[in-house]
Amino acid sequence: MEELFPIKYALDTFYFLVMGALVMWMAAGFAMLEAGLVRSKNTVEILTKNIVLYAIACIMYMVCGYSIMYGSAGYFLSGIMGSGADGGSTYAPSADFFFQVVFVATAMSIVSGAVAERMKLWAFLAFAVVMTAFIYPMEGKWTWGAGSVFGMYALMGDDGLGFKDFAGSGIVHLAGASAALAGVMLLGARKGKYGKNGEINAIPGANLPLATLGTFILWLGWFGFNGGSQLVVSSVTDANAVALIIVNTNMAAAGGCVAALILARLMFKKADLTMALNGALAGLVAITASPDTPSPVLATLFGAIAGVIVVFSIVVIDKLKIDDPVGAISVHGVAGFFGLMIVPITAEGTSFFVQLVGALTIFVWVFVVSLIVWAILKAVMGIRVSEEEEYEGVDIAECGMDAYPEFTGAGK
Amino acid sequence: MEELFPIKYALDTFYFLVMGALVMWMAAGFAMLEAGLVRSKNTVEILTKNIVLYAIACIMYMVCGYSIMYGSAGYFLSGIMGSGADGGSTYAPSADFFFQVVFVATAMSIVSGAVAERMKLWAFLAFAVVMTAFIYPMEGKWTWGAGSVFGMYALMGDDGLGFKDFAGSGIVHLAGASAALAGVMLLGARKGKYGKNGEINAIPGANLPLATLGTFILWLGWFGFNGGSQLVVSSVTDANAVALIIVNTNMAAAGGCVAALILARLMFKKADLTMALNGALAGLVAITASPDTPSPVLATLFGAIAGVIVVFSIVVIDKLKIDDPVGAISVHGVAGFFGLMIVPITAEGTSFFVQLVGALTIFVWVFVVSLIVWAILKAVMGIRVSEEEEYEGVDIAECGMDAYPEFTGAGK
Amino acid sequence: MEELFPIKYALDTFYFLVMGALVMWMAAGFAMLEAGLVRSKNTVEILTKNIVLYAIACIMYMVCGYSIMYGSAGYFLSGIMGSGADGGSTYAPSADFFFQVVFVATAMSIVSGAVAERMKLWAFLAFAVVMTAFIYPMEGKWTWGAGSVFGMYALMGDDGLGFKDFAGSGIVHLAGASAALAGVMLLGARKGKYGKNGEINAIPGANLPLATLGTFILWLGWFGFNGGSQLVVSSVTDANAVALIIVNTNMAAAGGCVAALILARLMFKKADLTMALNGALAGLVAITASPDTPSPVLATLFGAIAGVIVVFSIVVIDKLKIDDPVGAISVHGVAGFFGLMIVPITAEGTSFFVQLVGALTIFVWVFVVSLIVWAILKAVMGIRVSEEEEYEGVDIAECGMDAYPEFTGAGK
Repeated sequence: MEELFPIKYALDTFYFLVMGALVMWMAAGFAMLEAGLVRSKNTVEILTKNIVLYAIACIMYMVCGYSIMYGSAGYFLSGIMGSGADGGSTYAPSADFFFQVVFVATAMSIVSGAVAERMKLWAFLAFAVVMTAFIYPMEGKWTWGAGSVFGMYALMGDDGLGFKDFAGSGIVHLAGASAALAGVMLLGARKGKYGKNGEINAIPGANLPLATLGTFILWLGWFGFNGGSQLVVSSVTDANAVALIIVNTNMAAAGGCVAALILARLMFKKADLTMALNGALAGLVAITASPDTPSPVLATLFGAIAGVIVVFSIVVIDKLKIDDPVGAISVHGVAGFFGLMIVPITAEGTSFFVQLVGALTIFVWVFVVSLIVWAILKAVMGIRVSEEEEYEGVDIAECGMDAYPEFTGAGK
Repeated sequence: MEELFPIKYALDTFYFLVMGALVMWMAAGFAMLEAGLVRSKNTVEILTKNIVLYAIACIMYMVCGYSIMYGSAGYFLSGIMGSGADGGSTYAPSADFFFQVVFVATAMSIVSGAVAERMKLWAFLAFAVVMTAFIYPMEGKWTWGAGSVFGMYALMGDDGLGFKDFAGSGIVHLAGASAALAGVMLLGARKGKYGKNGEINAIPGANLPLATLGTFILWLGWFGFNGGSQLVVSSVTDANAVALIIVNTNMAAAGGCVAALILARLMFKKADLTMALNGALAGLVAITASPDTPSPVLATLFGAIAGVIVVFSIVVIDKLKIDDPVGAISVHGVAGFFGLMIVPITAEGTSFFVQLVGALTIFVWVFVVSLIVWAILKAVMGIRVSEEEEYEGVDIAECGMDAYPEFTGAGK
Repeated sequence: MEELFPIKYALDTFYFLVMGALVMWMAAGFAMLEAGLVRSKNTVEILTKNIVLYAIACIMYMVCGYSIMYGSAGYFLSGIMGSGADGGSTYAPSADFFFQVVFVATAMSIVSGAVAERMKLWAFLAFAVVMTAFIYPMEGKWTWGAGSVFGMYALMGDDGLGFKDFAGSGIVHLAGASAALAGVMLLGARKGKYGKNGEINAIPGANLPLATLGTFILWLGWFGFNGGSQLVVSSVTDANAVALIIVNTNMAAAGGCVAALILARLMFKKADLTMALNGALAGLVAITASPDTPSPVLATLFGAIAGVIVVFSIVVIDKLKIDDPVGAISVHGVAGFFGLMIVPITAEGTSFFVQLVGALTIFVWVFVVSLIVWAILKAVMGIRVSEEEEYEGVDIAECGMDAYPEFTGAGK
């Protein structure tokens, strides 16, 4: 078997890199989804946020996040360049770093959509630094890093309670949504979103093909997100697992898409495309906590329930006057929580109670620390653009250019 | 060699999944291509159709299509979760399901473009259910499933006539186009397309960068479509075959693109981008029946001929007043038929006659059954939107929203 | 070990094909980037140029470019269909061809952006034929082909000076920029770009989400561009190298993106999205010459410096009245040269002098020959559209259609 080690090592490394590349592609998916769902006057700024947050996530996670999460101090300086073969690992250390770093970016991408159209660019980027360097890595350490929560209790690992979150319904998606919720609460709603007499005004996105493209990109990228979380592929068991995970991921999205479309048709009398997109994403988020255990039929069903939940959630959150332009809190937070809670239905050795403990741990940590960070940023530099800037659009104010100067007459 | 089995199994499974992911990406390609080629007022609806048909295809193929096609009853409930190692297969059963299911979606994607801008959303989705659950799986069973055509004759398999359609020029593309043709014939042309005095009015697409993006996505995805149809990669022979297939796929598209551009320049005096796109796609469709046998030079030539054919075909079909907004019937039907017929030039053991029998079997089956299904749908729920809805655009009527509310003034 | 040969062969071939597919995807990236950065009236033409130049590159490289570069005459007719196993190679010959051919297209894609909005379509395509059939293959032969420069000196190979350009900062990117510079100099600036009194007028791009998408596509595709240039993955050493290369590629882009954004903020008081995009691309170009040697921290730093350089370069080149609508000469030329010159900092056995010799060899060859070819084209068929066509937009003049007929009122 020793003779086979190099080829297994190569295959696992290559698999990890391909899966990581698919997750990196999700950054483009979030950028397109969010750019399509905001108004044209706020499009350049959301694009800037999305590409720069990805860059910041990569840098900060390299600088300290990865070491915090997996406890290898100084790793980023030399360890990534070494060989996993020396340590008994079956893949290159750099491949592991690459896969992990694109996850951080995903968590942060969730935030940008929820705070769109009124948050200051540089306040957002400052938050991105803290989120990717510290907030996410800490809860990542308590879960995938197998560390204990402030020495009080451990969720995963040998001494852990048996919390399961395979690819991050909670660790990535609920976490991102928790940070977003904290930001939205301090930030307030967009001007004109909620009327004086309690009316809720729809603010349509400027470019729905872009939003649809973003959803397709995310759907594709999720095959890497979940499929790569098996970490290795080079045995029959692992190969079977990766294949089932990818099928289940696909089926959950399909179930969520169809269920949300049908429910939206029943509720609003229209085949609401944005609900179909959010339904697909909700299915993806929900299956992520345990994509390796349900049958494809059950995965479809789980996805469909998530699709139903997300439609109701978007309506309710809007009624609560929490202004989330792209529905990120519902898609990633509510569906992420749902995903954690359905794990015990199919995964042996898990319990609803422990899943709840895990969900609360993630939520409380990320929400509270994010709230503090947003509050500090609000005091220090302000987090909201001026009323005039919001009215004129943040693109000109923050970035000095229009996304579509010839289409809207803005640039003329 | 037994020691090597797990690593071969892992490699073949991983290869199958990557190729399948590329084919899934083609769903995004069709969505962008079609959204770019319709008018802005019909864009949301075509996007909705595209993403939902993909979801429906996945669900229906899981529920019954896969079992019909490959004869493994109940497979979807448990078989996908098992291990291919038990049955002597060199890849995970889920990986096979994943690869096959994305093909079904491709076949259905072809239909949406041809019936664009006037077909009712829900009638289309109802058809998608029947197509992906039954019509496609039946002809798939007769070919890749190696079943006999109603017990009369077998096209492939041990008792088969020797029909060759490697990755589906006929089984997927001609089939999709046949269903589309049946729909278009019952549906009629768009208002204003053909004038009272026989004039043919061009109806330009709203967003050509989107259409070009869609074509690039399809070109990329096709590497998976054809490259994955080798099914395994883990031997020298298979690896050589997969590599040649991908080169030939690329060259056929290149040939089709250039040939169509030059012909369009000669015919219309303009470098018609949409013809270049359709030429590339026609090359891809044509090479699909036998991408493993020609030399790259011959593949380029085959693609170029397909590119020429598709330009003429689009002109002729338009003159016949068959209104196909995106040219799907020409690209997938005519070039698909051409692809089947050139197989004997390079593939041993095949004959023009048998290829013709195969093409006719697929066409007659899909066209006739589709015609019946469309007719039933027409009688039961109607398949065409009202004149007023068509004039106003199906987006508002069916989906209640605009694709580009700020660009066209539609949303103001 | 002999028993392992087929599986190594299969893995290396599959790896090569996946990496090549990612590089092919870069063609879509360039198309979207350039289409987003030009005005709407010139969008169809730049899309046409991009997809057709890719097709031409594939055909011409097959016809003669590959043979020129790697000295295997007649290879394209039969060799690609053979097996690498016969010649002791560890991957399929077709996979090598596929990987190499997509690089040619990348080099040519660089040109289209710089000459955008005023160059004749067919003159451009004629240049593409010469560039991909001859100009690029010749300098490719002197470097990756290990041939000597007109028998005078050899840059790479056993008798070479020790020039290092791992994946083509110079061979691909500087070469593309050199050809572009020659074209731009003969072509002149766009009407209205430079005023009578020396003022420089910004000409904003029509669709920045498209430009951002293009950048994300390029970022993703670059994992294949650099990661695939290791050529094999099937040993521990190679797997480690590929993983480190992909991490460094990602980090250099991140560094360039953030550095360019910050510098643009300091210089222009605005968070300039296009500078952030160009910064990311400059980081990618710069790391390409030696992505296998720096640590990720150093790669980030190199990328950041490239991001800073590109901002200054774009400003300076604009002041020199060299009109490059998308900044291609700065991004690929200046950052490519920078990438070559930093190689000796981390790569053993290289020297600044030799890197300079290599850079000059590439630049002089490509620039001079391109200048001659452009001049011949100018004399024979003209390379610039008429003033009226430029004013009206090249889309109608060259392609006979509008990219966005409903958004700009152009088609009404």
